[in-house]
Amino acid sequence: MVEKISLAHGDGGELAHQLIQNVFITTFGHHDQAKLDAAILHIPQEKLTISTDSFVIKPTFFRGGNIGKLAICGTVNDLAVSGATPLYITVAFIIEEGFSIPQLQKIVSSMAEEAKKANVRIVSGDTKVVERGSVDGIFINTTGIGVINTEEMLPKTIDKQDVIIISGTIGDHGISILSARGELGLVTELNSDCASLNDLTSEVLNVSSRVKMMRDPTRGGVATTLVEICEDFNVTIEINEDALPVKEEVEGACDILGFDPLYLANEGKLLLIVAKEDEEKVLAVLKKFDIGREATTIGRVSEVETNGRLFLKMLLGSRRRLNRLAGMQLPRIC
Amino acid sequence: MVEKISLAHGDGGELAHQLIQNVFITTFGHHDQAKLDAAILHIPQEKLTISTDSFVIKPTFFRGGNIGKLAICGTVNDLAVSGATPLYITVAFIIEEGFSIPQLQKIVSSMAEEAKKANVRIVSGDTKVVERGSVDGIFINTTGIGVINTEEMLPKTIDKQDVIIISGTIGDHGISILSARGELGLVTELNSDCASLNDLTSEVLNVSSRVKMMRDPTRGGVATTLVEICEDFNVTIEINEDALPVKEEVEGACDILGFDPLYLANEGKLLLIVAKEDEEKVLAVLKKFDIGREATTIGRVSEVETNGRLFLKMLLGSRRRLNRLAGMQLPRIC
Repeated sequence: MVEKISLAHGDGGELAHQLIQNVFITTFGHHDQAKLDAAILHIPQEKLTISTDSFVIKPTFFRGGNIGKLAICGTVNDLAVSGATPLYITVAFIIEEGFSIPQLQKIVSSMAEEAKKANVRIVSGDTKVVERGSVDGIFINTTGIGVINTEEMLPKTIDKQDVIIISGTIGDHGISILSARGELGLVTELNSDCASLNDLTSEVLNVSSRVKMMRDPTRGGVATTLVEICEDFNVTIEINEDALPVKEEVEGACDILGFDPLYLANEGKLLLIVAKEDEEKVLAVLKKFDIGREATTIGRVSEVETNGRLFLKMLLGSRRRLNRLAGMQLPRIC
Repeated sequence: MVEKISLAHGDGGELAHQLIQNVFITTFGHHDQAKLDAAILHIPQEKLTISTDSFVIKPTFFRGGNIGKLAICGTVNDLAVSGATPLYITVAFIIEEGFSIPQLQKIVSSMAEEAKKANVRIVSGDTKVVERGSVDGIFINTTGIGVINTEEMLPKTIDKQDVIIISGTIGDHGISILSARGELGLVTELNSDCASLNDLTSEVLNVSSRVKMMRDPTRGGVATTLVEICEDFNVTIEINEDALPVKEEVEGACDILGFDPLYLANEGKLLLIVAKEDEEKVLAVLKKFDIGREATTIGRVSEVETNGRLFLKMLLGSRRRLNRLAGMQLPRIC
């Protein structure tokens, strides 16, 4: 095992997977539960679910949001994709000495606004300040609690021919953040897609009992999220290159910079696995929302088999195996 | 209002109080709830309580513990002093690129060990890695959930003549960390008191229904904790200088460095307000525990009045008013 933490350990890719397996799961003695973003709390009478996330995004402010809005959306989404209704959220700040209080106020206001929009209540908080140079600006942890209706508990069994749906264009957040950093000479008008997804998830679960799984493909992108599903649930998935919704600006930036939209982070996109017979119903519901207008089917489950794999069907008919994100792509993307 | 974050904003003292009042409470629209370390979740059939805390202690390892043990104890204690039984805890790491994995393993192992000891289950986690220089080593957030028996819900009404009890010597953590930093030429054999208090709190609540309030006096120390109680509950409290349990090494270090043990952080001490008639009963229970052997009464509630204040009765009979910790004392003490 490597002895030093590298940036890739936090990137949602292969090394992060190893770190979690080797250090955390082994030590804490967890199994299935620790694999999920949201953990179910077994409390009499109610199924609660809890999820924690720290946000270290750079820069703190970006087109379409800031670290505060992101911290609320991120945790709301982790709960929502497990099928839960988010209820409460805790917030903990680590702030660098010298940080601007007006900027902090803006961040906190965004959090309050987004919490209201997502109908979650902020409860319990903590603030630590560290000396200049000991943290880069501001980092925020949010932990959310939701209640879950046992009938809606996901994942359900995934079957051959189930379809893979995405609620909109992919890679917007990743390219928007790259652009905000101004590091690569990239300038775009692109907004991050940062948004709370709980209205979408609850509406979708209302109309369909055949949603098998939902995820929000953040760090590591759509490809890494699907590879994890293939491995954990023993299915092989094929996605179609020509079906992937990608904004022109994202495609252009990827061409120039050598990124693949399938591996770029999203912060307001819902990825669903749904039984074929409910495909149209689910798409219709998603399209009712502003943030779901471009929802589309991007692939299907081609086999149920151990050693499940993810394939990309290319325009010209060949297929290419996709793996988990390897090594560092974009540190501090969330 | 000052425009820049200073270290004192994170120190549990006056500026931190202002920041929370002016920025967080105002924006999130909270009142009583936000004052408490643990928030009560109103969920049908069960009263749950939740508490979040980030740990940024420097150094990461110290005599008597490390940041991991502290992160479990700190959150367990926040729940325990509210009268709750801690059940679940989430852990989120922010780690600097280059951090040693064997050291991380030690930290994680301490967390698992302490969680086992405190009988809490670690659920849900998150790991972010940031580039070298963007965080100082490792920071950890823990968020805990506990259940609370409504009969045991604290605080209860505080009355004149109620006694103030502390479970052991004060200031051990503060001086131990100062010594571990080696900054002030201070070398001691002193261990931090870092410990989970939930066994003590549950035993105490078992034998006495007259416990009015419990707190763990961390940042800002016993004095700041008591000043907050005086203000929030409209009581005046007198503590006796000659009754304060202080280890010789702590007293010596304070003399040399100009610190006051009343303002030093503790990470394994329980501060209680108890009806006079249950004083002996509660002391007897505390003394049954290794970490409560030196439990003692340090003062009493002298008046119930608005504008409650905290007084220190000096050895020679005079009394001195004590205020909230003002300005920065020891950054990154937890």
